[in-house]
Amino acid sequence: MPSTAPDPVDVARLREVLDGQWAGVRAAHRDNLDARFLPVYGESGDQARERISRLLTELPVELGTSAAFPAEYGGSSDIGGSIVASEMLAQVDLSLMVKAGVQWGLFGGAVVALGTRRHHDAYLRDIISGKIFGCFAMTETGHGSDVQQLRTTCTYDPDTQTFDLHTPHQAARKDYIGNAARDGRLAVVFAQLVTDGRRHGVHAWLVPIRDAQGNPMPGVTIGDAGPKAGLLGVDNGRLSFDHVRVPRDMLLDRYGQVATDGTYSSPIADDSRRFFTMLGTLVRGRVSVGGAASAATKMALTIAVRYGDIRRQFSAPDAEREVLLNDYLAHQRKLLPALATTYALHFAQAELVAAVSEVQGGDGPVDEHRQRELESRAAGLKAAQTWHATRTIQMCREACGGAGYLAENRLPGLKADTDVFTTFEGDNTVLLQLVAKGLLTGYRDEFGSLDGWGRASFVAEQVREMVLERTAARSLIERLVSAVPGRDEEVAVTDRGWQLKVFEDRERHLLDGAVRRLRNGASTKKDRPFDIFNDVQDHLLTVAAAHVDRVTLEAFVAGIASTTDPAVKALLSRVCDLYALTVIEAHKGWFLEHGRLTPARSKAITAVVNGLLKELRPQLRTLVDGFAIPEAWLHCAILREEPDRQEAMAAHDAGR
Amino acid sequence: MPSTAPDPVDVARLREVLDGQWAGVRAAHRDNLDARFLPVYGESGDQARERISRLLTELPVELGTSAAFPAEYGGSSDIGGSIVASEMLAQVDLSLMVKAGVQWGLFGGAVVALGTRRHHDAYLRDIISGKIFGCFAMTETGHGSDVQQLRTTCTYDPDTQTFDLHTPHQAARKDYIGNAARDGRLAVVFAQLVTDGRRHGVHAWLVPIRDAQGNPMPGVTIGDAGPKAGLLGVDNGRLSFDHVRVPRDMLLDRYGQVATDGTYSSPIADDSRRFFTMLGTLVRGRVSVGGAASAATKMALTIAVRYGDIRRQFSAPDAEREVLLNDYLAHQRKLLPALATTYALHFAQAELVAAVSEVQGGDGPVDEHRQRELESRAAGLKAAQTWHATRTIQMCREACGGAGYLAENRLPGLKADTDVFTTFEGDNTVLLQLVAKGLLTGYRDEFGSLDGWGRASFVAEQVREMVLERTAARSLIERLVSAVPGRDEEVAVTDRGWQLKVFEDRERHLLDGAVRRLRNGASTKKDRPFDIFNDVQDHLLTVAAAHVDRVTLEAFVAGIASTTDPAVKALLSRVCDLYALTVIEAHKGWFLEHGRLTPARSKAITAVVNGLLKELRPQLRTLVDGFAIPEAWLHCAILREEPDRQEAMAAHDAGR
Repeated sequence: MPSTAPDPVDVARLREVLDGQWAGVRAAHRDNLDARFLPVYGESGDQARERISRLLTELPVELGTSAAFPAEYGGSSDIGGSIVASEMLAQVDLSLMVKAGVQWGLFGGAVVALGTRRHHDAYLRDIISGKIFGCFAMTETGHGSDVQQLRTTCTYDPDTQTFDLHTPHQAARKDYIGNAARDGRLAVVFAQLVTDGRRHGVHAWLVPIRDAQGNPMPGVTIGDAGPKAGLLGVDNGRLSFDHVRVPRDMLLDRYGQVATDGTYSSPIADDSRRFFTMLGTLVRGRVSVGGAASAATKMALTIAVRYGDIRRQFSAPDAEREVLLNDYLAHQRKLLPALATTYALHFAQAELVAAVSEVQGGDGPVDEHRQRELESRAAGLKAAQTWHATRTIQMCREACGGAGYLAENRLPGLKADTDVFTTFEGDNTVLLQLVAKGLLTGYRDEFGSLDGWGRASFVAEQVREMVLERTAARSLIERLVSAVPGRDEEVAVTDRGWQLKVFEDRERHLLDGAVRRLRNGASTKKDRPFDIFNDVQDHLLTVAAAHVDRVTLEAFVAGIASTTDPAVKALLSRVCDLYALTVIEAHKGWFLEHGRLTPARSKAITAVVNGLLKELRPQLRTLVDGFAIPEAWLHCAILREEPDRQEAMAAHDAGR
Repeated sequence: MPSTAPDPVDVARLREVLDGQWAGVRAAHRDNLDARFLPVYGESGDQARERISRLLTELPVELGTSAAFPAEYGGSSDIGGSIVASEMLAQVDLSLMVKAGVQWGLFGGAVVALGTRRHHDAYLRDIISGKIFGCFAMTETGHGSDVQQLRTTCTYDPDTQTFDLHTPHQAARKDYIGNAARDGRLAVVFAQLVTDGRRHGVHAWLVPIRDAQGNPMPGVTIGDAGPKAGLLGVDNGRLSFDHVRVPRDMLLDRYGQVATDGTYSSPIADDSRRFFTMLGTLVRGRVSVGGAASAATKMALTIAVRYGDIRRQFSAPDAEREVLLNDYLAHQRKLLPALATTYALHFAQAELVAAVSEVQGGDGPVDEHRQRELESRAAGLKAAQTWHATRTIQMCREACGGAGYLAENRLPGLKADTDVFTTFEGDNTVLLQLVAKGLLTGYRDEFGSLDGWGRASFVAEQVREMVLERTAARSLIERLVSAVPGRDEEVAVTDRGWQLKVFEDRERHLLDGAVRRLRNGASTKKDRPFDIFNDVQDHLLTVAAAHVDRVTLEAFVAGIASTTDPAVKALLSRVCDLYALTVIEAHKGWFLEHGRLTPARSKAITAVVNGLLKELRPQLRTLVDGFAIPEAWLHCAILREEPDRQEAMAAHDAGR
């Protein structure tokens, strides 16, 4: 611990660091989205839908919501910018963020990525302008996670040169489809393509679902998913097709084509591989959802921290006024580690957004290896950020007591709206499983085709052993780790190299252990192939989480390394200590079990953490101010009213 | 692990065990509360308030909602029955449960406990019948947890023989008051009593707030806390008093009296002690809230478990149909430990309800020592059950995927309504602190008056060192613990005595450690008295949680001991193993740090837990059926619709 007080941090410098590469996009949102775009507390579901639909078309052009689209149609091919735009919208109204994501990210994005020029020319401008609202109709009532198993069929009839789009039973119903229940005119519908009596896997068609008067098209049944826990402004609905005729040219045919006589052709022979290639651009949605969750987390922490610096309860010995909430160790234990993790994930997210921009930007074909790496990273960080959001927003609600339960204090909306983020754009448990599979690839040869884990095996085949390589600040981290002495006793727990090495050792040891158990299972459970993987499933999820932890720490370290302001660098460094040590503390059981920590060192870590809480407590306000959330966006009654209430009470008490 | 398959459990026998001592009250609710009382999904806040107010007056008399009142006024002095009634109402509609709790538990209960005969004769019948709705106006905007510091004043004027009830500033506003915003005619208002120029601490008055036409009484301002995260059917409001004149005889004067000339008198001399004695009956509300949280948890688990036995996703090798969610180890890891903890808390709650009934039932004065013990137990179990509910209901929502986000599937309402249960009736962190203080009393002499922890010190003074004594099945548990060999290696981790001893050792060790640190602090931090306790606050909260864990395990053991059906006993015993071992596993870091577990034994525990998951997986449905929730009360679309959907899909797939 430093022996002198740290240099005061200039919040403007901290904000610059956090605003990062797309600071201009963030500024555009903060400057142009006024109170008109904020949530209306207590509105009905219908009112929310109407308001969000209207606001979607009123978003100022300066925001660049169509940034990801090709310049030719009014965009700027700025994928990173469009993801950051989602993060900013999330702090204004999460329903607005989701509906914008559906319209431009999923629906518009699918037309761009899966369609060809004739589709782009016919529809992109109207999609970007919001003249035509559209849906991304992939998920079905019966299949969400294993979406390759969807049951909607689309069968070509060469006689009419049309496809027959059909929902064979209720489980095949498209479900939870944003823009469906109220606004959608068109839908990108995913279905099993059948032609010439053969199935060719999942493809996508552009299908009108409502006419210009807003009535369902013939054969199209539109249902409403009904009231939800949150995201009231998003009109999630259900779509069923009763032998709906779809013209041949409405097949989005970039990756698969059907000739007039019904002959199928595709540049990619394998059905599964083609499907996952088609989904490649969906990674942006996953990255946006992770970033949006973190944006909401930052809002909740800003409220809880600022309230805790005003709100007082219970007297202290020798003190005139009651104790500030933030002065309680227990309160610091709730807020500070969550804030530290939020900072760590911020840098991981920034690194990921830059990677998406690099890998998917540009005009040439996407490097398949880097794309698979991106998908794995996006999956892991989406899971980490959304679970962190759920836990942290709940903690912030409780930290604000009864006030946190009133809609006017912002937290209820954040909680209700972000809840589903752990499920959509990929169920978190399934996503972590995807990450684990990716880490196993180096051992694939031992297990054959990994069929025991379903059709996603080919994804795992693509990822090479490189996953344990560092992706950020490689040489710096390599140096730090190499410099760690062999004996723990010789290095402080605040030594960055030691922390990185501990995270890395845990990931590697867990992975080795998982491989060993899978090998054993492959030889002893031949009669129960499902059990080979199932018996190790929890271990594999732990491997994935440990991997994400390590990647996150490395990103934080890289972010600090590129920070030039000395006071900001010093503060971030202490926050990074808190992050690393609370993660280690949380897993101390594992570390002790595996002899990687001694009991003495483990207890020392807890003492150092508590010391860090004391040291960082005075910086709580600075740390949330760094998020630069506009005052108006906080939209929170206690922040506006509690300071005066406390002053009036203090004045009254003094006058007594 | 048993080598033969366990005997099949007769669910009816399991239900008898769980329904327990007040099975009749549970049956009355299940039989008499039909679909009319269930939540209406998607209703507005106003609609919810109207519906709940109406239903409150339509509750069938057979339910015994007025059970806790004296027989003379229509009740049956059945305190246990009234608490169990709350648990049952919680499974129908949580707003109904809360509003009933406000009307009869808090408001009516305060009139009974704090008023005298003239108040009872004048008001109890109308309160019980619902003819007069009333509020419990204690919490203020500025003071919730430290309610003794409330700022509303009530000053006696002997000339007019009335009190002047006044809200001196906004922080003194009564806030979050159920029955205030819409329905309340009367309020029990807590304020600082002033007479003869002296303050005598917090007392309660019965104050009209609305006239017969529903208009606020002169000087009374009624505000609305506005839309909330949940509990939409409860009209939480705000009350401010502008020098409102309250007749002298409206002072609820059981514990403190003011003569016509203004002379104050009371059977209890100390202001603090008198206040906490007045709050004594409030423990029932705390016990009800804990039980209601567990009731909601059981509903959520029932839905998630039954869905997991129907819902399928991803194919398995050598299997025709996709894998049931409940067959995944990761899914079992989510559901089963939560179910085991729910069972454990069930028995702890049942034991507590019986204790409340015994200590507070009967006509003589309440045993003060047992009352304090009860308050400590109620505080700890309220915190444990409500946090468990929040975590578990969230897990169940995620386990049901996107369907869990739709209001029609019950989970969103459970989640939104129970959220505030971790805050009202006592903030959980403050409650655990209360528990910790109670455990410290044996060491009080070392610390003086414990003033560093505020005015609640006298409560701690009352509790004796007996808190480490067992309260249930004393001799059985004593025998089990004594039989444990000195060396761990000689006993299986499924040995009940070993499990009990481990829980007990942890509590004792943590307590000793806390005492040692406090003593050190008392001598080294004389200049910073706040830090003496604050530096140890997290440790103390851990002590309290460990205490609650031990008490819970003991209650589970006692419950199993009194179970006669062999198959039920065997099943509960395995569930208890899962509970005990997952708690130990969760704290393995602490156990390893303190040399109480070897790494090998720690790893063995995880292996045994995974084995228990496999063993108990086939019993998932039985375990939730044991909760005996009526099918209609589940009020959940996926449970009604998913089985047919899955069958239609399977039939279609087979026909292909």
